Amino acid sequence: MTSAGTLIAVGLGPGDPELITLKALRALQRAGAIAYFAKAGNQSHAHAIAATHLRPDVAKLPLLYPVTTELDRHSAEYKVAIGAFFDQSAATVAQHLDRGETVAVICEGDPLFYGSYMHLHERLAPRYATQVIAGVTGMSGCWSSVGAPIAQGDDVFTVLPGTLHEDELARRLGDSDAAVIMKMGRNLPKVRRALERAGRLDRALYIERGTMNGAKAMRLRDKADDSAPYFAIVLVPGWEVRP
Amino acid sequence: MTSAGTLIAVGLGPGDPELITLKALRALQRAGAIAYFAKAGNQSHAHAIAATHLRPDVAKLPLLYPVTTELDRHSAEYKVAIGAFFDQSAATVAQHLDRGETVAVICEGDPLFYGSYMHLHERLAPRYATQVIAGVTGMSGCWSSVGAPIAQGDDVFTVLPGTLHEDELARRLGDSDAAVIMKMGRNLPKVRRALERAGRLDRALYIERGTMNGAKAMRLRDKADDSAPYFAIVLVPGWEVRP
Repeated sequence: MTSAGTLIAVGLGPGDPELITLKALRALQRAGAIAYFAKAGNQSHAHAIAATHLRPDVAKLPLLYPVTTELDRHSAEYKVAIGAFFDQSAATVAQHLDRGETVAVICEGDPLFYGSYMHLHERLAPRYATQVIAGVTGMSGCWSSVGAPIAQGDDVFTVLPGTLHEDELARRLGDSDAAVIMKMGRNLPKVRRALERAGRLDRALYIERGTMNGAKAMRLRDKADDSAPYFAIVLVPGWEVRP
Repeated sequence: MTSAGTLIAVGLGPGDPELITLKALRALQRAGAIAYFAKAGNQSHAHAIAATHLRPDVAKLPLLYPVTTELDRHSAEYKVAIGAFFDQSAATVAQHLDRGETVAVICEGDPLFYGSYMHLHERLAPRYATQVIAGVTGMSGCWSSVGAPIAQGDDVFTVLPGTLHEDELARRLGDSDAAVIMKMGRNLPKVRRALERAGRLDRALYIERGTMNGAKAMRLRDKADDSAPYFAIVLVPGWEVRP
């Protein structure tokens, strides 16, 4: 009987293939199979970042979301569908682990920070040897690409999903020294109003495609329209009181 | 006349030399000089992380803090001393830039996330070509090393300095789904009380030396004493409602 393989979550960083770590690179070169989440019909961002670093003979296990925006994600129907999908994805990965293969789950950014990998982790880490390789987060990529110091000293720093209610966003933005707002898309007009109410709109920076090709960055005040991709983010740099 | 060199802030990640990025590695190998902050008499953590990757002929510019814990950091005396030190440090780096050298300021973690580099950035980035290379943060290194999913979905994630007042800590811990508390040291007993008051002590993890040699991690409940180094951190993982 073969002993089981190792599950490795590989953080690939925010998009620039040069922002992957030496540890991630070695894991990619060692893995027998790589697994990644993607929307059916779309290219996987994680795969695109890792592409130049993969062995030509590595097995690929795409894990394709059956539903994404078609169903309300708070509905019972969505929860059942997505839970079954994560169970099935874990079973696919487990099959390879059971054969003694090392499986690298490749992840944009940092695997345990708002990453889909976490759904595999809770299902597989109790049963298999598991290693998580931290990666540069998308938000670090964004503030670095525009050279915006985000937080310093005793700053309170908050990450907020743009899906929150406007009142909640405004309250939390007024109560943080520095903030990042994620999941923009159609939430942008609401985020803009919440920043205005919290008195933080003048500091806010809008960033699209972070460290990838075609990155766009501007003061949110200067953005004339309200169209934004889902993965755009807004930064509110702290460090207002400097020595 | 020589044209001025480039300032590069190089994020080195949380401590494991394998967690530096390909981009950081290339910057280290290209730089004519490296600069780093350190406490006089102590080894620089950044230098220790970068050591195996440095060219033998690279010029080294240690920037040694004149004061650290001797003065109250809210006193006028401290502010004058530390401001003069950052001015002098920027002047040292500028001298090399003026000779056309590329100077890499090496930084633990991510340069623009609570990093000392930011004091050089605000003084030099307006005058010299500047590039910031994002790094894996210390906190990502910590939650990855213990395999603790930190935040997911619509979680609100907050970074809190342990220096905050106990009431403030308790309020903010009760108002966040996921949190990281930094700057532990003698703040640990207060942080423990604030977590208890916020009903979050059972989820809290105490981590010392993150991804470095001699890392220690345990549930904070299980830590019998209150002694902690300044750079220890406490994690409060979110993702309490899972699909």
